[in-house]
Amino acid sequence: MDTDVSMQMNRLGRERSSDRPVLMAIAGDSGTGKTTLTDGLVKALGRERITSIGVDDYHRYDREERKSLPFTPLNPKCNYIDIMEQDLQHLALKQPILKPIYDHDTGTLGRPEYIEPREFVIVEGLLPLFTKLSRACFDVTVYLDPPEEIRIGWKLGRDTKKRGYTEEQVREELGRREPESEEFIRPQRSYADIVVRFSHIEERGESPSDPLSATLLLRPTINHPDLSSILSEGTRQAMHLKLSRDSDGKPVDAVHIHSYAETAITKKVELGIWDELGTEEPLPESLGMIDGVRDEPLALTQLILLYHLIQAREA
Amino acid sequence: MDTDVSMQMNRLGRERSSDRPVLMAIAGDSGTGKTTLTDGLVKALGRERITSIGVDDYHRYDREERKSLPFTPLNPKCNYIDIMEQDLQHLALKQPILKPIYDHDTGTLGRPEYIEPREFVIVEGLLPLFTKLSRACFDVTVYLDPPEEIRIGWKLGRDTKKRGYTEEQVREELGRREPESEEFIRPQRSYADIVVRFSHIEERGESPSDPLSATLLLRPTINHPDLSSILSEGTRQAMHLKLSRDSDGKPVDAVHIHSYAETAITKKVELGIWDELGTEEPLPESLGMIDGVRDEPLALTQLILLYHLIQAREA
Repeated sequence: MDTDVSMQMNRLGRERSSDRPVLMAIAGDSGTGKTTLTDGLVKALGRERITSIGVDDYHRYDREERKSLPFTPLNPKCNYIDIMEQDLQHLALKQPILKPIYDHDTGTLGRPEYIEPREFVIVEGLLPLFTKLSRACFDVTVYLDPPEEIRIGWKLGRDTKKRGYTEEQVREELGRREPESEEFIRPQRSYADIVVRFSHIEERGESPSDPLSATLLLRPTINHPDLSSILSEGTRQAMHLKLSRDSDGKPVDAVHIHSYAETAITKKVELGIWDELGTEEPLPESLGMIDGVRDEPLALTQLILLYHLIQAREA
Repeated sequence: MDTDVSMQMNRLGRERSSDRPVLMAIAGDSGTGKTTLTDGLVKALGRERITSIGVDDYHRYDREERKSLPFTPLNPKCNYIDIMEQDLQHLALKQPILKPIYDHDTGTLGRPEYIEPREFVIVEGLLPLFTKLSRACFDVTVYLDPPEEIRIGWKLGRDTKKRGYTEEQVREELGRREPESEEFIRPQRSYADIVVRFSHIEERGESPSDPLSATLLLRPTINHPDLSSILSEGTRQAMHLKLSRDSDGKPVDAVHIHSYAETAITKKVELGIWDELGTEEPLPESLGMIDGVRDEPLALTQLILLYHLIQAREA
């Protein structure tokens, strides 16, 4: 039985027939930059080729109902995980879904939305990698893992500016969520093909006012671009690769992307990665934009995700 | 390919493994008595054993949006037929669904509802039998086919008393709907295992003020109770069976259920049908209630549907 289910699940994602969409998960806690990362990929490919959905719409309760409940939205019990699994399977099989909608402004659940998968589907949210069946639907899985102090800064900025909360409210909510973050959100990190960490590199003496560098852990669970042939001493300033061990001791490639690199060198790395795809499409110019400014580590991170989307499509 | 799909579809419904729910469709135009028929079955079995859903909730547009569209809710284009098909398959496989909700009072689409199938699922609405895949999900299919003047009377009564329309508005809407009723609703009659017609029997000189008799066409597509062994000259007053041809010339059993029969004789027929089930459960007392009064033809019709639900469950 177990073998059958597992075989069936593998079939859903990895052994994709060519007309099925490519599904990418972008998982991570609240305020880790899922939307920023997703938006750049959608802009690069265009809305006619890529669908993005947020699985936090699968909330089981509205804000009012949650007040009397002993868990936060991070808890699987607070979400229709079974319906999310069904819908991910439908999308992976190129079928439409009627996705529920949670309105973050009003905290209410409303009229669902009809969604047809395009060539590419990005599924971002708190729990897209929570179950074995949900994970099996994806061609590429990403987990966002910024240091906690950076995440809190990002979340404070967004929730006070865009969602009308006070700083005190956000901090109180973060405290309330921490046990469930530990129990349900962070374990998803171990299921990601790529772990993305935007942070300052302390060994280089970077300070909180400097732009963020990025570290990508590339797990040997999918085929990554052959960075060893792209990178050289001359590109080391922009990106370098290091064979490493993950926190659980498993081998992993760690790619460091430096914010301080010269644009010309970053560009050379980008073109090298893009060339490896062997695609006719030009390298999108729109990557890495955040609040109207281009951020090179974000651009390179998005480029690597884009590489995987296109590669999976052509596989 | 065609054979594979068809085999798969047959498997969904008819070759049901014993822990899967029994699905019954009750299809028919607006005002044909679907809710009355369904309510009696739900009451007889109890809400802990039976789930009923209305597939008119799969409306694609709300009332406001429909005003500028060239079709009525009877048109498949006005409904998420593909999502209905998905959800019927989920229910047939004992999986939960997140069903959309259309509010008939306000004409709006709202927060969807989480539904888990119980032992029995009744799916009533305008178009549950519209596609081959939807039909394949059912163990038993029923079509309600009252004469048009009776349907119009029922619809006028309900829509003016319970939905706040004027008689003129209802008649205008009926005219607008007629072409789509002919094109999309009535063809479903040919896919039903049982066609139910509540009407006056003109040959007996019944007038509009008399209670309605019922005619059930029992198609040889499922195993009906062996009425020939239950019915006799002595029960003829309550029910009789006649080998007949349907309007398309195909052979069918026509069961006539008379409203004027004595209660004792009707009861004898009921017990005969129930005995054939060989079930431990007692014959439900609650059948046939309409506006607080028991209607014998309705009770016998519900009993035959109940027979099929329980038989399919034990098959």
